[in-house]
Amino acid sequence: MELKLTLKENRKPDLGGKLGFGLRFTDHMFVMNYTEGRGWHDARIEPYAPFVLDPAAMVFHYGQAIFEGLKAYRDAAGRVTMFRPELNMARLNQSAERMCMPAVDEKFLLDAIAKLVSIERDWIPTEEGTSLYLRPFMIATERNLGVHASKEYICCVICSPSGAYYANGLQPVSLKAEDKYVRAAKGGTGHYKFAGNYASSILASEIAEKEGYDQVMWLDAKERKYVEEVGSMNIFFAFGNRIATPALGGSILPGITRRSCIEYLTANGYEVEERTVSIDELIEGVRSGALTEIFGTGTAAVISPVGKFGYRSEEYVVGGGKMGKIARFLYDRITGIQTGKLPDEYGWVYRVED
Amino acid sequence: MELKLTLKENRKPDLGGKLGFGLRFTDHMFVMNYTEGRGWHDARIEPYAPFVLDPAAMVFHYGQAIFEGLKAYRDAAGRVTMFRPELNMARLNQSAERMCMPAVDEKFLLDAIAKLVSIERDWIPTEEGTSLYLRPFMIATERNLGVHASKEYICCVICSPSGAYYANGLQPVSLKAEDKYVRAAKGGTGHYKFAGNYASSILASEIAEKEGYDQVMWLDAKERKYVEEVGSMNIFFAFGNRIATPALGGSILPGITRRSCIEYLTANGYEVEERTVSIDELIEGVRSGALTEIFGTGTAAVISPVGKFGYRSEEYVVGGGKMGKIARFLYDRITGIQTGKLPDEYGWVYRVED
Repeated sequence: MELKLTLKENRKPDLGGKLGFGLRFTDHMFVMNYTEGRGWHDARIEPYAPFVLDPAAMVFHYGQAIFEGLKAYRDAAGRVTMFRPELNMARLNQSAERMCMPAVDEKFLLDAIAKLVSIERDWIPTEEGTSLYLRPFMIATERNLGVHASKEYICCVICSPSGAYYANGLQPVSLKAEDKYVRAAKGGTGHYKFAGNYASSILASEIAEKEGYDQVMWLDAKERKYVEEVGSMNIFFAFGNRIATPALGGSILPGITRRSCIEYLTANGYEVEERTVSIDELIEGVRSGALTEIFGTGTAAVISPVGKFGYRSEEYVVGGGKMGKIARFLYDRITGIQTGKLPDEYGWVYRVED
Repeated sequence: MELKLTLKENRKPDLGGKLGFGLRFTDHMFVMNYTEGRGWHDARIEPYAPFVLDPAAMVFHYGQAIFEGLKAYRDAAGRVTMFRPELNMARLNQSAERMCMPAVDEKFLLDAIAKLVSIERDWIPTEEGTSLYLRPFMIATERNLGVHASKEYICCVICSPSGAYYANGLQPVSLKAEDKYVRAAKGGTGHYKFAGNYASSILASEIAEKEGYDQVMWLDAKERKYVEEVGSMNIFFAFGNRIATPALGGSILPGITRRSCIEYLTANGYEVEERTVSIDELIEGVRSGALTEIFGTGTAAVISPVGKFGYRSEEYVVGGGKMGKIARFLYDRITGIQTGKLPDEYGWVYRVED
C-alpha cells in the first residue's frame, strides 16, 4: 500500500510552557481506512484534523476501539528513536484479534509511524522525562446499530509532545487495594489494550483519589485476593533481590515496559518470578520486612515507585515510603537506553531515519 | 434549559423496502453538550448530521460511552407511544454514574425525545414487529489522552425505523453456553449499558455463530456455572408455571423488558423467582422434562424463544425445540400493550403528544 503525504505549508512546533500529558498535538497525523472486502486503504499522513463521523458509527455505541502507546525520543546527537515499537505493533494486532477488528500490516504501520515521527521531529521535546508520545488507535466506524463486528474502521496515529505522565514525577505513589470494583476477569478483555478497560477503571480511581490514594491496585475478579495491575501500569514486588510480578493469566496487560524490566533484571543477575502474588503475601511481607520495594511499570511513567498501599482501612508502608534501589536502577537504565544515554545492549532501540 | 429546534425544509420519511435494524435514520436528531463547570447546554433538535470530533476525543481512546434503546410505536388510531421510557432515562443515569459521566435531567431528556418522535412521526413504521427504534447515547469528547473522566460530553438521540431485531423473527434460537469467554464480572460494568460490554461480547458471539448457534448464553465470571444473560438479552426459564430468571447480582443488565415480564407474569398468576440458575440445573431440567421453556427478553426482540442450548459439545433441546406457551403469552401481551392493541393495564404506555 502506498503512503500518501499531504503536509502543512505552515508548521508550528510548539514546545513552550508546561507540556502536560496528551494535551497538545502535532501538525500531522497518520490515517488509514478499512472496508470489509477491500481491506486497509487510503493510508496517508495529512494535517491533524477532526474526524467527521456518523452519529451511528459503531464506536459510539458498542465501543469497539483499541489503542497503543509508545514514545519517540531525540537524543543529544539529534538522533530520533523509539523503544521496541515492533512490540506495540504486535500487541495492536493481538488486541484487534480479541476485539474482532482487522489486523494491520505491522511493518507498514511501523514504517508509517517512523515517517510521521520524522516529519514531526521538531515537536520532540528533549528535557528529562519528556518525549513525543505516539498514540496509534483503531475505531469502528460502520453506521449500524446491530451488535456485530464493524465492517469499517479507521486506524490513526496522533503525536503529542508530553512531559512526565505523573505530575509528581518519581515521587512514590500510594495505592488502594480495591476489593469492590474489578478491572477485568479471565475470559474478558484485560489482556488487551481495549479502550473500554480504561473507562471501566475510572470510578474506582476516582474513589481511591477521594480517599487520598494516587492509584488503584486491582485484585483478581474471582478471589479478590491476587494482585493484577496498578492504575494502568503493571506491578513489581521486590523481596530483597528476588522480584515477583503477577503472571499474565489472561486478565493482565502484557506491558512492554514490564517485559523489558523482566528481561533487563534477569540479564543483570536478579531473579524475577512471574507468579500469583496475593494481598496477604504483601501484608505479611510488610510486617516481616521481607517486602522491600513495590514499583509500577508502564510506557507513560516508565517506572513509578510505590510508597504505601491501603487495604480495608489499614495502611502498609513499603521501603520506608521512599523509592527503592531496584526501581531507581531500572528507571535509570531503561530511560537511559530509551534516550540514548546508555548503549542499546539488547537491540531495543529503533532508529528513525532522517 | 431551552430546547432549540432547527428543522429540515425538505423531509423525506423513507419506510420503503426492507427496514432491517438500525440501518437507516430519520431526518433529525437530538443533541446536547456538557462542559464541566457549565453543565448540559445547547440542547437542540437539528438535522441528522455527522459529529466533528477531534481524534484525541476521549471516547476513541478510553471508551467512555453509554447508551439506551427504546421504541416508539404508532397505533391503529394514529396515536404515538413509547413503552416505559422513564425507566430508560433512569437507567441512563445509573450507567452514567458508574462510568463517571454526568447525569441528565431525566424529565427534560424524555420531553425532548417525545418532541423528536413527534417531529419524526411519519418515520414510524406500523407493520407487525416494526417500530421507530430510539437510541439515546452519551460519549466523552474531551481532547485529552490522560486517563480520567472526560470533562466534556455529547448526549445524542437518533431514531431508526426498524424491522424485527432478529431476521428469523419468533423462530426459536439456539444458544451456546460459553465457558471460556466472560461478559462481565461482579464489580465490573455488566449491570450497566456501557458501550464496551458489547464490543467485549463480539468474539464469543462470532465463535458461537461459527459453531452453528444463534447466540451466546453467558455464564458467571467466578464459577463459570451460573447463567447470566443471553447475547444482549435477559433470560427466563420455565419449569411448568414456575419461572426463574437470574437475579441481578451486579453483572447482569437490569432489562426493562425483563422487569415488565416479571411484573406481568406475577400479576397474572405465575410464580417468578429471581435467583441463581446453574447450567447443571438446566441440563437436569432437560433430562427430567421439568424445564419446559427458555426465552430471552429485550427491547429489540421483546421475547425471543430458545429451542436448544449447547454446553461442552452436548446439545439440549427445550420444549421440543418450539416456542412455548409462556413465551407466546408474554410476546402477545407485551407487544399488544406496546402497540395499543391491548389496554394499558399497568400504566406502562407513554403517550407522545401531537
